Amino acid sequence: MNVGIVGATGYGGNELNRLLTKHPKIEKCILYTSSEEGKAYRDSYPHLTEISHESLASLDGKRIEEEVETLFLASPPGAAAELLPKINRNKVKIIDLSGDLRLKDSSLYEQWYKRQPADQEIVDQAVYGLAELNKQEIKYATILSNPGCFPTASILGLAPVAAQSLIEESSVIIDAKTGVSGAGRKPGAAVNYSEINENLKIYKVNGHQHIPEIEQALNLLNKNISTVTFQTHLVPMTRGIMATIYVDLKEEMSSEQLLDCYQSFYRDSYFVRVRPLGEFPSTKEVYGSNYCDMGLAYDERTGRATIVSVIDNLMKGAAGQAVQNFNIMNGYEETLGLELAPLFP
Amino acid sequence: MNVGIVGATGYGGNELNRLLTKHPKIEKCILYTSSEEGKAYRDSYPHLTEISHESLASLDGKRIEEEVETLFLASPPGAAAELLPKINRNKVKIIDLSGDLRLKDSSLYEQWYKRQPADQEIVDQAVYGLAELNKQEIKYATILSNPGCFPTASILGLAPVAAQSLIEESSVIIDAKTGVSGAGRKPGAAVNYSEINENLKIYKVNGHQHIPEIEQALNLLNKNISTVTFQTHLVPMTRGIMATIYVDLKEEMSSEQLLDCYQSFYRDSYFVRVRPLGEFPSTKEVYGSNYCDMGLAYDERTGRATIVSVIDNLMKGAAGQAVQNFNIMNGYEETLGLELAPLFP
Amino acid sequence: MNVGIVGATGYGGNELNRLLTKHPKIEKCILYTSSEEGKAYRDSYPHLTEISHESLASLDGKRIEEEVETLFLASPPGAAAELLPKINRNKVKIIDLSGDLRLKDSSLYEQWYKRQPADQEIVDQAVYGLAELNKQEIKYATILSNPGCFPTASILGLAPVAAQSLIEESSVIIDAKTGVSGAGRKPGAAVNYSEINENLKIYKVNGHQHIPEIEQALNLLNKNISTVTFQTHLVPMTRGIMATIYVDLKEEMSSEQLLDCYQSFYRDSYFVRVRPLGEFPSTKEVYGSNYCDMGLAYDERTGRATIVSVIDNLMKGAAGQAVQNFNIMNGYEETLGLELAPLFP
Amino acid sequence: MNVGIVGATGYGGNELNRLLTKHPKIEKCILYTSSEEGKAYRDSYPHLTEISHESLASLDGKRIEEEVETLFLASPPGAAAELLPKINRNKVKIIDLSGDLRLKDSSLYEQWYKRQPADQEIVDQAVYGLAELNKQEIKYATILSNPGCFPTASILGLAPVAAQSLIEESSVIIDAKTGVSGAGRKPGAAVNYSEINENLKIYKVNGHQHIPEIEQALNLLNKNISTVTFQTHLVPMTRGIMATIYVDLKEEMSSEQLLDCYQSFYRDSYFVRVRPLGEFPSTKEVYGSNYCDMGLAYDERTGRATIVSVIDNLMKGAAGQAVQNFNIMNGYEETLGLELAPLFP
Repeated sequence: MNVGIVGATGYGGNELNRLLTKHPKIEKCILYTSSEEGKAYRDSYPHLTEISHESLASLDGKRIEEEVETLFLASPPGAAAELLPKINRNKVKIIDLSGDLRLKDSSLYEQWYKRQPADQEIVDQAVYGLAELNKQEIKYATILSNPGCFPTASILGLAPVAAQSLIEESSVIIDAKTGVSGAGRKPGAAVNYSEINENLKIYKVNGHQHIPEIEQALNLLNKNISTVTFQTHLVPMTRGIMATIYVDLKEEMSSEQLLDCYQSFYRDSYFVRVRPLGEFPSTKEVYGSNYCDMGLAYDERTGRATIVSVIDNLMKGAAGQAVQNFNIMNGYEETLGLELAPLFP
Repeated sequence: MNVGIVGATGYGGNELNRLLTKHPKIEKCILYTSSEEGKAYRDSYPHLTEISHESLASLDGKRIEEEVETLFLASPPGAAAELLPKINRNKVKIIDLSGDLRLKDSSLYEQWYKRQPADQEIVDQAVYGLAELNKQEIKYATILSNPGCFPTASILGLAPVAAQSLIEESSVIIDAKTGVSGAGRKPGAAVNYSEINENLKIYKVNGHQHIPEIEQALNLLNKNISTVTFQTHLVPMTRGIMATIYVDLKEEMSSEQLLDCYQSFYRDSYFVRVRPLGEFPSTKEVYGSNYCDMGLAYDERTGRATIVSVIDNLMKGAAGQAVQNFNIMNGYEETLGLELAPLFP
Repeated sequence: MNVGIVGATGYGGNELNRLLTKHPKIEKCILYTSSEEGKAYRDSYPHLTEISHESLASLDGKRIEEEVETLFLASPPGAAAELLPKINRNKVKIIDLSGDLRLKDSSLYEQWYKRQPADQEIVDQAVYGLAELNKQEIKYATILSNPGCFPTASILGLAPVAAQSLIEESSVIIDAKTGVSGAGRKPGAAVNYSEINENLKIYKVNGHQHIPEIEQALNLLNKNISTVTFQTHLVPMTRGIMATIYVDLKEEMSSEQLLDCYQSFYRDSYFVRVRPLGEFPSTKEVYGSNYCDMGLAYDERTGRATIVSVIDNLMKGAAGQAVQNFNIMNGYEETLGLELAPLFP
Repeated sequence: MNVGIVGATGYGGNELNRLLTKHPKIEKCILYTSSEEGKAYRDSYPHLTEISHESLASLDGKRIEEEVETLFLASPPGAAAELLPKINRNKVKIIDLSGDLRLKDSSLYEQWYKRQPADQEIVDQAVYGLAELNKQEIKYATILSNPGCFPTASILGLAPVAAQSLIEESSVIIDAKTGVSGAGRKPGAAVNYSEINENLKIYKVNGHQHIPEIEQALNLLNKNISTVTFQTHLVPMTRGIMATIYVDLKEEMSSEQLLDCYQSFYRDSYFVRVRPLGEFPSTKEVYGSNYCDMGLAYDERTGRATIVSVIDNLMKGAAGQAVQNFNIMNGYEETLGLELAPLFP
């Protein structure tokens, strides 16, 4: 099978390229570009010297239909909304990492992304690809919307207690921390090494575009959840996201009971590793892998539970999850090409 | 005036040494040790070559009384409890950074520190030295208990709204993040560079010994506050603490009103810099200085306020605050020897 | 095939475990320990939760002979010298990463390692495993001595010009820089995060034990080379080694000619990637992979060439190279289990 | 006295501002800009909230003459060449950090900087401000050219042996390593955190514009030195430069003799700290201070000496040295406003 990537020179696209060039079911991975046609990919990423031999191909709807069966969109917000109408979606399956198709309510998209939303018909057709929650739907998707990095860690961390109505619905607070690669490869004052190193910042306070995505997903699990508090921090590291989640429990329960709830919920989820009581995952323990690791504790002093959920933002938070969805959409083993152990230290 | 430091080979003690050797009112700063008598201080800290000429002096109660007027204890927990009974506290003022004298209720000390508490009489006599809240008391202190690093950022971040009863008392959540220097200079697997770098960890979940210190201080400001949720994260950086604080407000208020409340409260506090709306401090913006910087926002969607409070853990979180207290106890200008601009980048 | 690792709880051993558990020809990888028998491996390395199911097995010569066909020694210096006499080396192939068997002249071992050397007979039997230089010998080795991390980068960087006598023999200067993981997992003041972060150190000036290893290898390539200047620096990063090599050329040559020399020399070496003129590899461009990347330039102003050689110290500098040697010793494709693309960023 | 800074929003200018606002002889420090007139300085650098109250003033030659006695140019190359002809240099002393006035031979400037040189008359008038070598000249300078960061560390590291003709003149190799702040605050792909962190790069191989500056200074000390090999590496840290210097000695000498030579040479240089034998400075040991620390060793095996010289690139490598020169030019104590202990850790 041949597949294509739009936006392969970004970090998410590059990670996709790393995974897809080694994927056992993929013969060729074509890299499309709107502006750098003919450029050798290795000139952008010399670490792939002698591995990724492709030159960038011109981004053309017709050509794409003929060349590939699945197209990954690893472009920033806005690109998918613009590109998708030009592609015959009966011929090419789409896996979109841009974020354009995540919010079903387009007015929310406009409000939080400050952009024109994609065609409502495309948005309606897109399946939200969080396989641990809706694998059946993903099997039959032709347009798949890959979840955001923060929402992946946050929703997985909350799903068991949200779905079972164990929490006070208005009590959800997510204190999220991310490495810098999520900001992409584009130069910018905000990602200058000297400003990030030995520094810790909060950003987009009460305004991150991942808030409505998290709320939409939780609301599907539990109608009584409508808003959450979600703040994001920039940590001096390249990869990794941690969501520290605080919830008030409706009824007192032991940490053991809480653990049971999580272990049952994720019994069949290969990529979720719920840790034993007393152990909490650090971000590096999933580095370079597709795992989402969790630890949790109930505090009887306050009646509050703390849940910690970590992912590699470029893997389970982007490219890895996209490949997981690709596998499911094509009837392959969910883990194909993703059986990578985390790199440590 | 001569002063002394016990524990100057630790990071907190070394930072004290940096400040005290340049302090305009101090003639000599004597460094006491229980185990390394005669060793040149620069052998431990070659960055002070030609600056700190002292050799380590033997730790002897009698000698201390004769040599110094104020003694700083920069030792780990347990040391103050053991050392203080041996010193004539009528002759020497004590500034204790060990944490042994912070909790007025000794049973709490035992429970959270897992150690024998200090003599209750000494604990009773010790004044908690958070000058922004109780400068008058500090003026007449002979034993001063210097606040912990996390409590300093957390209590200052909460004091205005706690004192004015603006918050739901059981709603306080503090998500704290710290650099690694707080763990001290002692070698340990947990601070091995390879385990910390490019990694983010949560630790001591629901069990950090700074929890009762924060609760004690908040309870003094507002009798209805008894427990808080407080979690700590280890960030791959050397210096800096950020407390991201979440509180439910009793009544809706604008971010402007919230800002007013903070600005009024800290009008006369030189070392607290409340930022304008929309701006939040990063940890590096107080690096090497004694400032505590704050930013805040109210979210009308959730009825919750987020307050961000940052300090340099070795300065306002330890040595800087100790010198600030020293100044107040001796009738000097509060800022003497502390007018250091943050180092950036 | 079953294989075993001694010292799997160190960083090198852990990296071996990562590679061997995914190696297509290996059924079982048994982890031996002298002191922690029965302990679950994941307790030391939770990132391998649900991946490495082994508990540590007792280190016993008899047992090893029965259980495994190849034994990897990933222990610190001294361990191999002690362990090897207890193992029947007709039954078990040995791949030693400890360094004990690298120096053929045992008096040099004593001088530079400050330890008792291994039995001369074992030392004589051991084949130095730098496959790019002596693959034929490795094929028939029963005891293989895996090169040191610095020597790997340095010798590969010098081999083409040394073998062809293009350089002034006494002019070799290697300025080496390494990440911290080379120092291992043992706690120590020298690897405390706060001492390493935002810091750069030189260490073991004129005294690093890898000096005689480099000299021995170069002398085999060119009898006229007897000593080199080799200094090592500790860089605030976890993985990666760069050797910046300075040599005076005997005769003026263009950078193009120099490049030709390197490209010819490494034509058949899968893991060496010589970069085009004007491009120099950074350490992260080989991160997590078994590549050794090189860049070079001749400076006609000074008559001197600069050669840059980078590896991942835990991969081509240790575990990856050991697996490469394992493949060759067993007649497998050299690259088996090592076709990992570098992880970037 | 009033002084002015052009380019205060860069890192070097910001560091100057930190030093000059606390300098005991300076009443007011005016910040000039060509493009951001009226902007509050703290908007660019919120860490100086309540410390630097200035707004940026318009850059006007007339105005500058009236307002300040000394003007610091902390602009990138090219700015000084353009600005200086517009200022009456009889009224305002100039301290230039741009590099435009360092090379006396303007053809070298063109060749290495790829720019139009400044007027030869201005270049001729400018005094090179490395006070440890030419303090007398600096006293009477009206235009001072502040040395580059790498040349400062390199020239100071070589001066004693160069001046006394102890080294083979063509043997000088300087392997330099720098933190990222030297690249300035401008956004750029090369300084994106994700590209720098956990990475080590060599750059500008054989082409760094500081090469002719180093050669010019060494040639003044020793006519027989004409070229050096000088390579630069980018280290994942913000501040700090280390020059590891390799030289062949003409005659064998002990490390003790070499140390004597350095200690004598720098006997009266407050800011140079020559370390005892066996001890080498790390970059963090001068962090935030104006020191240049050195360590050295002679290796009798190779006849080569290794000299290590470290500075903080923003202090002794830029702003600190500029203030040192300012002090000398105005007859103040050389150390005024610069008695800052390094910040550690």
